[in-house]
Amino acid sequence: MTNVQVGVIGASGYVGAELIGILLNHPNVDVTKVSSGQNKGRLFSDLYPSYTGQFDQPFVDNETVIEASELLFICLPHGKSEALVKQCIDKGKKVIDVGADFRLDDLGLYEEWYGVESQFPDLHTSSVYGLPEMNREKIRETSLVANPGCYPTSILLGLYPAVSSKLVDMNTLVIDAKSGVTGAGKGLSDAVHFANKNEGFNAYKVGTHRHTPEIEEKLGDMGAGDVNVLFVPHLLPVNRGILSTLYVALAENVDAEKVHALYEAFYADEPFVTVLKKGNWPNISHVTHSNQCHIGLTVDERTNRLIIVSVIDNMQKGAAGQAVQNFNIMTNLKETEGLSMAAPSF
Amino acid sequence: MTNVQVGVIGASGYVGAELIGILLNHPNVDVTKVSSGQNKGRLFSDLYPSYTGQFDQPFVDNETVIEASELLFICLPHGKSEALVKQCIDKGKKVIDVGADFRLDDLGLYEEWYGVESQFPDLHTSSVYGLPEMNREKIRETSLVANPGCYPTSILLGLYPAVSSKLVDMNTLVIDAKSGVTGAGKGLSDAVHFANKNEGFNAYKVGTHRHTPEIEEKLGDMGAGDVNVLFVPHLLPVNRGILSTLYVALAENVDAEKVHALYEAFYADEPFVTVLKKGNWPNISHVTHSNQCHIGLTVDERTNRLIIVSVIDNMQKGAAGQAVQNFNIMTNLKETEGLSMAAPSF
Amino acid sequence: MTNVQVGVIGASGYVGAELIGILLNHPNVDVTKVSSGQNKGRLFSDLYPSYTGQFDQPFVDNETVIEASELLFICLPHGKSEALVKQCIDKGKKVIDVGADFRLDDLGLYEEWYGVESQFPDLHTSSVYGLPEMNREKIRETSLVANPGCYPTSILLGLYPAVSSKLVDMNTLVIDAKSGVTGAGKGLSDAVHFANKNEGFNAYKVGTHRHTPEIEEKLGDMGAGDVNVLFVPHLLPVNRGILSTLYVALAENVDAEKVHALYEAFYADEPFVTVLKKGNWPNISHVTHSNQCHIGLTVDERTNRLIIVSVIDNMQKGAAGQAVQNFNIMTNLKETEGLSMAAPSF
Amino acid sequence: MTNVQVGVIGASGYVGAELIGILLNHPNVDVTKVSSGQNKGRLFSDLYPSYTGQFDQPFVDNETVIEASELLFICLPHGKSEALVKQCIDKGKKVIDVGADFRLDDLGLYEEWYGVESQFPDLHTSSVYGLPEMNREKIRETSLVANPGCYPTSILLGLYPAVSSKLVDMNTLVIDAKSGVTGAGKGLSDAVHFANKNEGFNAYKVGTHRHTPEIEEKLGDMGAGDVNVLFVPHLLPVNRGILSTLYVALAENVDAEKVHALYEAFYADEPFVTVLKKGNWPNISHVTHSNQCHIGLTVDERTNRLIIVSVIDNMQKGAAGQAVQNFNIMTNLKETEGLSMAAPSF
Repeated sequence: MTNVQVGVIGASGYVGAELIGILLNHPNVDVTKVSSGQNKGRLFSDLYPSYTGQFDQPFVDNETVIEASELLFICLPHGKSEALVKQCIDKGKKVIDVGADFRLDDLGLYEEWYGVESQFPDLHTSSVYGLPEMNREKIRETSLVANPGCYPTSILLGLYPAVSSKLVDMNTLVIDAKSGVTGAGKGLSDAVHFANKNEGFNAYKVGTHRHTPEIEEKLGDMGAGDVNVLFVPHLLPVNRGILSTLYVALAENVDAEKVHALYEAFYADEPFVTVLKKGNWPNISHVTHSNQCHIGLTVDERTNRLIIVSVIDNMQKGAAGQAVQNFNIMTNLKETEGLSMAAPSF
Repeated sequence: MTNVQVGVIGASGYVGAELIGILLNHPNVDVTKVSSGQNKGRLFSDLYPSYTGQFDQPFVDNETVIEASELLFICLPHGKSEALVKQCIDKGKKVIDVGADFRLDDLGLYEEWYGVESQFPDLHTSSVYGLPEMNREKIRETSLVANPGCYPTSILLGLYPAVSSKLVDMNTLVIDAKSGVTGAGKGLSDAVHFANKNEGFNAYKVGTHRHTPEIEEKLGDMGAGDVNVLFVPHLLPVNRGILSTLYVALAENVDAEKVHALYEAFYADEPFVTVLKKGNWPNISHVTHSNQCHIGLTVDERTNRLIIVSVIDNMQKGAAGQAVQNFNIMTNLKETEGLSMAAPSF
Repeated sequence: MTNVQVGVIGASGYVGAELIGILLNHPNVDVTKVSSGQNKGRLFSDLYPSYTGQFDQPFVDNETVIEASELLFICLPHGKSEALVKQCIDKGKKVIDVGADFRLDDLGLYEEWYGVESQFPDLHTSSVYGLPEMNREKIRETSLVANPGCYPTSILLGLYPAVSSKLVDMNTLVIDAKSGVTGAGKGLSDAVHFANKNEGFNAYKVGTHRHTPEIEEKLGDMGAGDVNVLFVPHLLPVNRGILSTLYVALAENVDAEKVHALYEAFYADEPFVTVLKKGNWPNISHVTHSNQCHIGLTVDERTNRLIIVSVIDNMQKGAAGQAVQNFNIMTNLKETEGLSMAAPSF
Repeated sequence: MTNVQVGVIGASGYVGAELIGILLNHPNVDVTKVSSGQNKGRLFSDLYPSYTGQFDQPFVDNETVIEASELLFICLPHGKSEALVKQCIDKGKKVIDVGADFRLDDLGLYEEWYGVESQFPDLHTSSVYGLPEMNREKIRETSLVANPGCYPTSILLGLYPAVSSKLVDMNTLVIDAKSGVTGAGKGLSDAVHFANKNEGFNAYKVGTHRHTPEIEEKLGDMGAGDVNVLFVPHLLPVNRGILSTLYVALAENVDAEKVHALYEAFYADEPFVTVLKKGNWPNISHVTHSNQCHIGLTVDERTNRLIIVSVIDNMQKGAAGQAVQNFNIMTNLKETEGLSMAAPSF
């Protein structure tokens, strides 16, 4: 089998860089070209010196990347992907859009939360939301995958078994999520100056984060109906990882044993979701640098609430890793190919 | 005015050490003696080398500390204070118990959650829960203050205005709290090994933390009635600080403006509680090494929930700082004397 | 005694902010006004939210600060102070220049390393290098103190006893220094992005750091003669602190005992320099948030080299703390007034 | 080709755990069994939860591991390996000893520095010091490799070109090295308690570290003759990585260009050593989680000293990664097989 010729557009950002790291080790991939609007002409290894001598390609323009590739990963800010995707699809290329432009089916919601109007609405009917645990078969069939947001991935995986089994009262849902600093991207700001972030911790975008409608729409697809979720993100002084603590009232009288067994059964065949034994709780450090999602859960009998804790690496299962998982599905490769199954021990 | 002769029992632990740091700079205090069960004979500065040449006293036994002092700070694990407090009170000394033995009025609850039976129940009728913002006048009159737990301090200060004004439906309360590592104390364990904790973050004691009944009882005292709270603590990879995110449904139709104004008015005269301007959110790093509590809040209109974020330094307002605040009140000193009003900028 | 009316020029940078923190707690100081070129009109507490409600003054222009004050702290980049100092001195104000403009007596060296020509050379004859352990009496007499650089402070204090006693062969000196991130200042750059600096460590400006001529000139003043020093700084993933490891051959046959005794005697009366017991080594965390310098030393008999390790907090003894120490001396206050004698224990 | 049947003795420590992580992803390896003296019967994934569902094997005894394997990695404290190695070799197995027992050819030195006497001196004549860049051909031929220490690896790679070319005066060598916390191992102590190590940095074992004779002996093998080196290690608040700063006088008049060209030529064909372009300096974060060594260098003309900075991941090129590199050589696999060529970007 010949390798898939793969290009990365927007490769100078953190997600692009992580993707390059995974793709270079993927046995069935040739990385053709990489582009960056701001860094055209510079070497990838000048921006990311760990690749010195390993990947010294210069950033080129988007067109060169598209021409050279069968499949494109696009890692651009919202509003910047749609026209490029159109161009790629028209040329018969496959696309995995790692940004936000194709995540929402409801284009009105997209416009409301992102302030951008879709120019190619038809394109959205063929795109598939790339959460493999939910849409594996559709991903296999499509040419255009919308890679999920980092927070939604951790939250949706944590809630999917309970929501699809109608175990919980969604009106009571509280989502308290905590992310590492790479989630804020490569841009410079006081908030990510080491001296400010180190030994600091804070909530931000309280109730207003753009991942909110994505969480709501996909929970709806999972069977939750119309829901308004309360979602509060926080910024941790670590490089990687998201831990989401999910609180929701049990809709009927279900005990901890039964819920736990349901979760275990639900994810028994999933290579990248691990339900921990009762009494064990996940740690961000147990999944960083891997494509794993670890889930712990219990029922608080005093308040009849289900508590679920879900952790992922925001750069892997929350972005680049999941993109490659989608790539493997779209190209009929082994779903785990080229992906890290377990985090380093420290 | 002569200085108050103050001793510290259990001075080798983290809270004891922080207390020594504050007391040495307090203009109206002489530190007499310090004790430690495990470190008797060793120098304080051998355990805490930053005090080399500044406080080289050896740890002595408890009796020597008691004899030498008018007022005792006791920083011992639960179950270890009560008998010592009895001894001090019988000798006419004042006591600030920084541990858990006197925090709960309901001794049945204490026994249930801590597994220890009170030997001197009468002593508890005269003790006062040392949250100055709630009990300032009682603290002024008593000889025995029970210094609050770190999590309860951050949570109770965050909820006090809303609860006492009956603005919220307490059955919907969710408390998601995050603490720095010093909250786990000086003891060695895999959980606090640097290589495990660094770049890690996890929930622990989910729904089972011993501060739960303290939060519930004091919320009741504030006007909440009988409540079961859902409290989930997490352990941050920072040395100091607690950030509590509090979620609770508004009982009536109150808007963000009104709630915010209520909070500002409620704490207008408090030297150690700062309500942030709308749109600003507190950060652990803005209070560490100070006795401040910063509070930010908003109303999420989509879910009609009040969201309050409260931060303190677990070692200062959450332990040693608040103990000295109580000391100042009990001894008729200026309440802010010897305490840090503002965190260093970084 | 009335308080000294003190103003801070360039108060929006890290050193300015640290200085404000110290001065607000100083019992003999009134902070009059603060200035910032870039942040005029903004509140100090908007930049440094830990001061919310404690110091909400707006930044004004330099002239307003000068008019309102008897003594000025100037915290500006090199080349920006000299003209302002001239203006202050002409008006009869005292000045502590925390920047680099007056540190070097040799104005040729200054021009060579900083690329800036002095406009008021006469002013330099009256300025005193503000290392109190070296120049205490001159500081007491002057109206203009040049506050030392952070690296030079840690290095000069580490070498002073050995150099002034002619114990060492200066041609063999190697200085390997490591600084926390605040040493790089408040400016944004990839190098101080949390995701880059966290878990990172590197050498920088190898052999070319501008503190090199300052170290050389002052070592000369201490008795070293003309020396070229080899100085390599590194950037630690911590907020504060400098640790300098100093390697130098013993000029004559001196043993570890004798050198250690010499160091202890040399610094016996210094309030802010602590020579550790033999076998103990200093840690950055033992001095951060204090004005202390801790020094450990030994002789490696296998190579006949003296090894000295010196630690300070770059923001305190390395900048703002030392500036206040100089202030205390210049204004005939107790030298330790308002300064932290010991670091918090954690 | 059938996979090599590989066992790990002492797999519960940090080096063992890192090795398991690498071996599980190695395409030509089957991990047979793992042993641990203290953790027999426990699951590997109970100690290292990131392997939950991925490697849940119990720790067994050493004999079971040996019987099941063709090649053994032994990761035990000094003094614990030699007898086990004897047992393995007698049974015709190959061995890579990741501990210290076979690193020194001079058994007298071993006894002097480690306080342990060799029981099987003959065994040492056939062992090869496993620094592939130095001993590749010998490694290919032997059945017993002594994997180098972490500090020596970073230091020897940094000095090898200069020493073997006789460019430097070894009597002037100063080695200032800084290691991440995993270098101190899994054991609990105050020194690695998060609250102590976080924001801390210190020198330790100044001039007395056991890697000293290993550095000296191997430098001798490289052509340095008999040397006493001055080696001072420091402990960084990061999980991984060693940065060694090496200072040595140039023996003859060589300029920076020439030295740099020599280093580039020397390592041109080495897959795991990268000499950086002039003006670039390595960062620990550029090599962590990879088997790379990055080297930067310059000549300080003011002092005629060569300065070399060398970084590795102490757990990879400094331990487990280099062990697998040696494994690949010993088993005639591609030398880079299963190893990470480049660190993640963050």
